[in-house]
Amino acid sequence: VRMSDLSKTTGLPVATIKYYLREGLLHPGHPTAPNQADYDDTHVRRLRLVRVMMDVGGLSVADARAVVVALEDNRLPLHRLLGVAHHALGPPADQESPPEDLHRARREIGDYIDDLGWHVSRGAPGRHALAEALVALRRLGRDVDAHVFDPYAKVADQLAAHELAKIPEGLSRAEAVERVIVGTVVFEAALVALRRLAQENRSALAATKRHR
Amino acid sequence: VRMSDLSKTTGLPVATIKYYLREGLLHPGHPTAPNQADYDDTHVRRLRLVRVMMDVGGLSVADARAVVVALEDNRLPLHRLLGVAHHALGPPADQESPPEDLHRARREIGDYIDDLGWHVSRGAPGRHALAEALVALRRLGRDVDAHVFDPYAKVADQLAAHELAKIPEGLSRAEAVERVIVGTVVFEAALVALRRLAQENRSALAATKRHR
Repeated sequence: VRMSDLSKTTGLPVATIKYYLREGLLHPGHPTAPNQADYDDTHVRRLRLVRVMMDVGGLSVADARAVVVALEDNRLPLHRLLGVAHHALGPPADQESPPEDLHRARREIGDYIDDLGWHVSRGAPGRHALAEALVALRRLGRDVDAHVFDPYAKVADQLAAHELAKIPEGLSRAEAVERVIVGTVVFEAALVALRRLAQENRSALAATKRHR
Repeated sequence: VRMSDLSKTTGLPVATIKYYLREGLLHPGHPTAPNQADYDDTHVRRLRLVRVMMDVGGLSVADARAVVVALEDNRLPLHRLLGVAHHALGPPADQESPPEDLHRARREIGDYIDDLGWHVSRGAPGRHALAEALVALRRLGRDVDAHVFDPYAKVADQLAAHELAKIPEGLSRAEAVERVIVGTVVFEAALVALRRLAQENRSALAATKRHR
């Protein structure tokens, strides 16, 4: 189909599709005439993935491009591809030279992850986010070590096992990437919301008991 | 002590302290002379709480003021005060007239929370956030109902029970508010980070198994 049809099918303006082409997020169509090309289902699916990455995942163009490059590199094992998508979700590890307490917390979190027996790459953004949470607690006067996270690590592992078991067999690489983005971001939002609702419920129960 | 000493103790510029006074976030000092007042420990503690609310909790001045008003209203039971602090963390429920699918999802989430047997106020922000997660999944083509959140609700309840049991007895109202803000925000960040790390670990394990 022509670009105008691709625009209708996907609901994306032609200007946006052209932008994705220029940025390398969308592979070129098959040329049919000068300045004209034919687009197919692979383009429709790719545009959907790009939108999921940017709208749901909040990825920048540069991060989305890194995922697309990994996606198109068929020598890259699926597991590594999903790692690229996962890490692109961030949060970015800033600070070349972190303050001393954050630097120390990162080492402690590294040891903690080793103690858990988890295989996690050194560049995983979650490491830094967890170290920052530890530092935040300490700066607020709580005398804690990484084991304060034990109950959270336990349920996180339960959830991850459940989530992995739910992934259908035979997904394409692009479908698997989309699933990682959606699963990570949307269920994360749901988990956060449910934790707050559960806190409110447990707090209400405790208040009722006290007043009896 | 004078305002300049209060500034030194808390590390906050005098201009910031004056701003908090004007905005009703900080109670006035005891007047000692025209244009001069004496501040005490209650002011130091309040400023700490205000900073936690704004820096850690990301509360706006208006939301922080609502918590302060609830804090100072001693007729308000502690449980209700903590609810105010909790809800101020948001996310805000936008959209007076939500799109039809979101409207329907909100009703479904309401029924779901009832089925869980959770006592949660109608205005709890988590309700809307959860409905939005459900709608996001459906708009992405997943044919799901609210029970897709079952495993998350289960661990959320486990965590909430654990968290409530860890709150020390005899906290002041202000300390309890601070604890709710820090506990909700910092451990939420930790939980999100740990889930991503656990996903990476489980994914690596599965890849290793496949290659054996």
